[in-house]
Amino acid sequence: MSTFDLSGYLLRNRKLIDEALINVFDELDPQRELVQAMMHSLMAGGKRVRPALALATAHALGADPLIALPASCAIEMIHTYSLIHDDLPGMDDDDLRRGVPTCHKQFSEATAILAGDGLLTHAFHILAAPGSCFKVFPDAETRLILVKKISAAAGINGMVEGQMLDMQAEKKPEDLPADSADALAHLKKIHRHKTGAMIEVSVASGAISAGANKEALNALGTYAQNIGLAFQVMDDILNVEGDPKVMGKAVGTDALHDKMTFPALLGLEGSKDFSKQLVANALAALDSYKEKEFKEKSEPLRAIAGYIINRNR
Amino acid sequence: MSTFDLSGYLLRNRKLIDEALINVFDELDPQRELVQAMMHSLMAGGKRVRPALALATAHALGADPLIALPASCAIEMIHTYSLIHDDLPGMDDDDLRRGVPTCHKQFSEATAILAGDGLLTHAFHILAAPGSCFKVFPDAETRLILVKKISAAAGINGMVEGQMLDMQAEKKPEDLPADSADALAHLKKIHRHKTGAMIEVSVASGAISAGANKEALNALGTYAQNIGLAFQVMDDILNVEGDPKVMGKAVGTDALHDKMTFPALLGLEGSKDFSKQLVANALAALDSYKEKEFKEKSEPLRAIAGYIINRNR
Repeated sequence: MSTFDLSGYLLRNRKLIDEALINVFDELDPQRELVQAMMHSLMAGGKRVRPALALATAHALGADPLIALPASCAIEMIHTYSLIHDDLPGMDDDDLRRGVPTCHKQFSEATAILAGDGLLTHAFHILAAPGSCFKVFPDAETRLILVKKISAAAGINGMVEGQMLDMQAEKKPEDLPADSADALAHLKKIHRHKTGAMIEVSVASGAISAGANKEALNALGTYAQNIGLAFQVMDDILNVEGDPKVMGKAVGTDALHDKMTFPALLGLEGSKDFSKQLVANALAALDSYKEKEFKEKSEPLRAIAGYIINRNR
Repeated sequence: MSTFDLSGYLLRNRKLIDEALINVFDELDPQRELVQAMMHSLMAGGKRVRPALALATAHALGADPLIALPASCAIEMIHTYSLIHDDLPGMDDDDLRRGVPTCHKQFSEATAILAGDGLLTHAFHILAAPGSCFKVFPDAETRLILVKKISAAAGINGMVEGQMLDMQAEKKPEDLPADSADALAHLKKIHRHKTGAMIEVSVASGAISAGANKEALNALGTYAQNIGLAFQVMDDILNVEGDPKVMGKAVGTDALHDKMTFPALLGLEGSKDFSKQLVANALAALDSYKEKEFKEKSEPLRAIAGYIINRNR
């Protein structure tokens, strides 16, 4: 059993990313409503799982984790924009997120749309021009690769399409596959797009920022695919048996809306077994990369994989 | 008087950009609702002024205009996303745009939000990875500069902030400057952000793609600032005296909503004089750049400046 102090590690990383995000927006006039709306959602207590993955990946490859900080900020800004737009009345119409009012509730619908647009646009600006916000950052060629990978993961063949698929599954359940194997494949496809792509690109961005070789990219890619899916399986499990006070949002909503979820398709125990199998696959992928110091330095990545299926929110 | 055939030139450019945009999305499954929604708005008969400016700028500097095509597509995709989000019920709540149903009317509000998000994200993807969609494209270093400039123009210190300022001016007219000089300065600030920044970056992207020197960038920057403002002054004039059939949208709406506009502050004749002065400034800026062949090759740019205040839609 590892003695690695994951909660201390996550706390230090969270501080790093919070400070970096504040730096990014520090030059802007805090009286501007747009700035307030972006900061409201950026600082609403996110778990910062994606940035932690990017920083831990850079560390695992022997690089200064700070080299992955610009991509970490960009990814967290994109994640936050997606939550703001997802919560809009025209989408999921949610009033609360992480226990605080959603952006359109706190400000206005128009402001929330623009705050989301602003975060998404500024994420790419940060990658192109990290400037004085960051002590170190990858060279120009690497940053262009980050723009390419992150825009692919966030966009029309990644997260945005995942939102569409998720919405269509909820609005037209009669179009979903009746066969349970097909339904499971379709559910995996939704989540691979909706959440998996951004989790995968978090790991990839850490690796690319650190100048990873192809073998490392492959091993880390398999790790990321597995924990990305495990993350979503666990989200579905928490919607069944999580504590709404700890989660900061309602539970039981999936069953109420007869939503296609892993517990609905595999049962609660089946889903737990599946999430454990996915984490085991992720750890095996890390084991496959035999670089000398990687085993020790990848300890945070291993701990995060465990955290993903043991978290309570 | 120039004998330059602007309408033929704009038609050829429009064909170029339409074909390029179709190429960009050609690999995607046309059955996907997200793809349909993006194409619906992209192909809804836009004037393609911004791409024309980028292509004409590259031509003026002696480059193959096609080198500016990736940036032109990215800018038109960003322009289109901004219209989709601007038309949403939570923003301007418009049913028609260019005579066809707006994206959320044709599809759904959620689809329109995601189609806008998808276009914005894919614009940066095209810049980072133009790939097989384009015969020629700028080198990686130049493309990273394009990501930087275009994200700055489109984002929280450019177009997105312009939308905020515009919305605040409409919703809280009591907060606007009472003094007419201050009101005019504020109106210019709104438009410099809302439309000026993207028009300026269209010209700048053509210049950067063509490898412009500093002197050319300066002259073209002044040209772009002036026509950007002239464009908005003319939009306000057309809202007073345009033909709704030609425009594909209602006119007289600004006066009806007591909106702060150039005609409201300067009068109709004063606004026309102002727009002519701005175009004269733009042409003078072009004259200031003395490179041998620029005078002849900048003819399309000069003609576009004239078109901006002589158009009827």
